[in-house]
Amino acid sequence: MTTISGPAGTPDPAPGAAPHGYADHKSDHLARLHKIEGQVRGVTRMVDDDRYCIDVLTQISAVTRALQEVALGLLDDHVRHCVTDAARSDPAAGEAKLGELALALRRTLRL
Amino acid sequence: MTTISGPAGTPDPAPGAAPHGYADHKSDHLARLHKIEGQVRGVTRMVDDDRYCIDVLTQISAVTRALQEVALGLLDDHVRHCVTDAARSDPAAGEAKLGELALALRRTLRL
Amino acid sequence: MTTISGPAGTPDPAPGAAPHGYADHKSDHLARLHKIEGQVRGVTRMVDDDRYCIDVLTQISAVTRALQEVALGLLDDHVRHCVTDAARSDPAAGEAKLGELALALRRTLRL
Amino acid sequence: MTTISGPAGTPDPAPGAAPHGYADHKSDHLARLHKIEGQVRGVTRMVDDDRYCIDVLTQISAVTRALQEVALGLLDDHVRHCVTDAARSDPAAGEAKLGELALALRRTLRL
Repeated sequence: MTTISGPAGTPDPAPGAAPHGYADHKSDHLARLHKIEGQVRGVTRMVDDDRYCIDVLTQISAVTRALQEVALGLLDDHVRHCVTDAARSDPAAGEAKLGELALALRRTLRL
Repeated sequence: MTTISGPAGTPDPAPGAAPHGYADHKSDHLARLHKIEGQVRGVTRMVDDDRYCIDVLTQISAVTRALQEVALGLLDDHVRHCVTDAARSDPAAGEAKLGELALALRRTLRL
Repeated sequence: MTTISGPAGTPDPAPGAAPHGYADHKSDHLARLHKIEGQVRGVTRMVDDDRYCIDVLTQISAVTRALQEVALGLLDDHVRHCVTDAARSDPAAGEAKLGELALALRRTLRL
Repeated sequence: MTTISGPAGTPDPAPGAAPHGYADHKSDHLARLHKIEGQVRGVTRMVDDDRYCIDVLTQISAVTRALQEVALGLLDDHVRHCVTDAARSDPAAGEAKLGELALALRRTLRL
């Protein structure tokens, strides 16, 4: 959602625009997620190999943190594009995006 | 943490026993981790397919929670076996396990 | 972050407006915070009275959750007002707010 | 709960012993909690004074972290004393403590 016009209630993204706000960071997010897939496979292998619990826990903490970093990046992209664009273009659309964002933050904070 | 002999002859794990406390739940942990691997691949696919940020975030929250469930299970197994066994057998070994556990909890709580 | 004038003459907050985005929910936030103060005093009293660790921990979890609820409310207010207003009025101001928000989210998620 | 005897089902804490495991760190926990009370009052004052949202959020993160540090300390004390002592003295009591601990960890991790 990148083609915004003005604050005066202009039509939303151009048809064909990516329906999300992370277009600019898509390859970063994918690279992180591929790394996380490998990390999870590594944790599975550790358990399969009967590795020491504490070492498995250390690795799980690292994966959890890496996932939360991706979530943070997506939240940032989302506010930066979807929420801001919607707010610029149309109060009702902005309101809807803000409600969605609050729910996503709630889930990310595990509340 | 398993082949220790207690001060009062507490029964010890058989020699050759797995060097960790999650032997009883190993297949549960592996099943959860395989599911998590699939979930992470699903998140990657969502980003690759330009799915809406909020939906990706919802899925990341689910994966994070699933990982923390595995961490909780491992912590429980660890206290139940490694820490308790060490404490029963030898104060110094118990102390070492407790120090390790505190660090693992700290990382799991992200402090 | 309120007395900025947009490039396209977007309506700006009245001069003298509160310099924050939570004006509408200020009394809610204060009520929650007063309750949290009481809860923390309650935890202190529990420890002072040698209450059982697990019961103290349950109460600390409740306080932590209540604090995170206030943080969530403030984040929501902040995006809803400060970030959106800044983005509407001036790209550079919007950018600055977004950078600040990302840092605040990072701290709130403890990354 | 500090006066344990042996692994052979010995009588639990002496009558009159504090019914919790944090006796050794009670004054530390109280000092931290008093500081946290002051921090929460500080957050209330910030909101009352219409301080900038991001600054309030930064302070809330600090309080949350301080509370989680107290939780971590209590968990450590609890495993170190209550769980270990119970496990040493009586399998059924140990089992009960371990179940309680798993629930407390679950709440602390917000699962």
